Amino acid sequence: MAYRNIKLTIAYDGTAYHGWQSQPDVDTIQQCITDAVERLTGQSVRVNGSSRTDAGVHALGQVANCRIETAVPTENFAKALNRILPEDIAILEASDVDDDFDAISHTMTKRYRYTICTAPTRGVMRIRYCWHRPGALNVEEMRAAAKLMIGTRDFNSFASAAETRQSSVRNIIDCAVSVEDDNIHIDIEADGFLYNMVRNIVGTLVEVGRGRWPAETITTIIQAKDRAAAGPIAPAGGLCLTKINY
Amino acid sequence: MAYRNIKLTIAYDGTAYHGWQSQPDVDTIQQCITDAVERLTGQSVRVNGSSRTDAGVHALGQVANCRIETAVPTENFAKALNRILPEDIAILEASDVDDDFDAISHTMTKRYRYTICTAPTRGVMRIRYCWHRPGALNVEEMRAAAKLMIGTRDFNSFASAAETRQSSVRNIIDCAVSVEDDNIHIDIEADGFLYNMVRNIVGTLVEVGRGRWPAETITTIIQAKDRAAAGPIAPAGGLCLTKINY
Repeated sequence: MAYRNIKLTIAYDGTAYHGWQSQPDVDTIQQCITDAVERLTGQSVRVNGSSRTDAGVHALGQVANCRIETAVPTENFAKALNRILPEDIAILEASDVDDDFDAISHTMTKRYRYTICTAPTRGVMRIRYCWHRPGALNVEEMRAAAKLMIGTRDFNSFASAAETRQSSVRNIIDCAVSVEDDNIHIDIEADGFLYNMVRNIVGTLVEVGRGRWPAETITTIIQAKDRAAAGPIAPAGGLCLTKINY
Repeated sequence: MAYRNIKLTIAYDGTAYHGWQSQPDVDTIQQCITDAVERLTGQSVRVNGSSRTDAGVHALGQVANCRIETAVPTENFAKALNRILPEDIAILEASDVDDDFDAISHTMTKRYRYTICTAPTRGVMRIRYCWHRPGALNVEEMRAAAKLMIGTRDFNSFASAAETRQSSVRNIIDCAVSVEDDNIHIDIEADGFLYNMVRNIVGTLVEVGRGRWPAETITTIIQAKDRAAAGPIAPAGGLCLTKINY
């Protein structure tokens, strides 16, 4: 059997999981997929996911790779894994890639969508996938604030305390606010994100939207390089990893 | 305090519940709402729901009424209950109604929607609310079959064994098949439904859609008045009670 490097594109409803990364004694996405690949191939494997999504965060475009010897044809690989996996995790695509492809280090940008539902009453079939926050928000002001997020900056003000990476400089290439019925979507794309960065940005944009701060305050918040200067963290359920670009 | 009759319009994601009706030792929608009303008002109450939806079945338009003495203003009643209820149950509306209004016996028609997702891969954020059945179905043939369901007939062929009501004659006033992206919706409205009737009709329409039977077979199936003549039952998760008409 040939030694292969398989790229997986993965979707999940993260509600029932303690995030992507395997940890002892709790259900994680990485562990479910690792178990499924091992059951399918009979071999032990390491599944490298591009983004370590937090507990309760969803994905429609997570990417992982795993190096493995298996005779299972690529066209059957996703279907076979989906038969093994729980219903709230699905492999959208499996493909053979060059041996040097690494889902983590080869990531160029990651894109997330955060959804706020502003309807007076929660939608019972949507509640797992949004932050239900009844009441109008000033979308134009949020849009102006979102634009000020774009660029290569030190985003330390939006990094939660657990952040351990050396540099807090990241390049946000898109930060857009759109409205769909009762929902406000915030789409953010960057070369990488600090711990809780998207949810801290969303929480801050909501403070702008509800009138606590004018949009221009974003510049002051970024300059402070201090988590205490920004708004509160938005809940996990509204966040979805939509795309990894290579 | 005035003795009042309050009508509740209710939505729920039924996935986590053993159906509408209260039963010992399991979670039910009726019990959750009863508990919430009792906690809000400090009084014991009976919540009469129009439709005893099964385990795993959802609702966007269940209706119930309860007779209770409470000083809570009607306009605050729904909001206050929603604060107490679990996130997957929501009161959409609460209103004071005539004392003789009864959610069960005053029902004129009930409307259900069943959703089949035909996409090759399951949608992780949709899977709770559909029957994921990959592969094309002949929608035109299903539509022709659905039309043959309409009318006042003995629907015993579509009643599961647990059915205990005296007459199996019902009047189906609408049975429509529509397509939205990868989803096929079947909307059915009748003056009442036998036990599992919607799911047995859907399972039968799918047999027509996949080519096992031509549409005309529906007439033979109805005439048989025998559950064994119809198709298998469709899974609960695809079914949603959308409207009760009074």
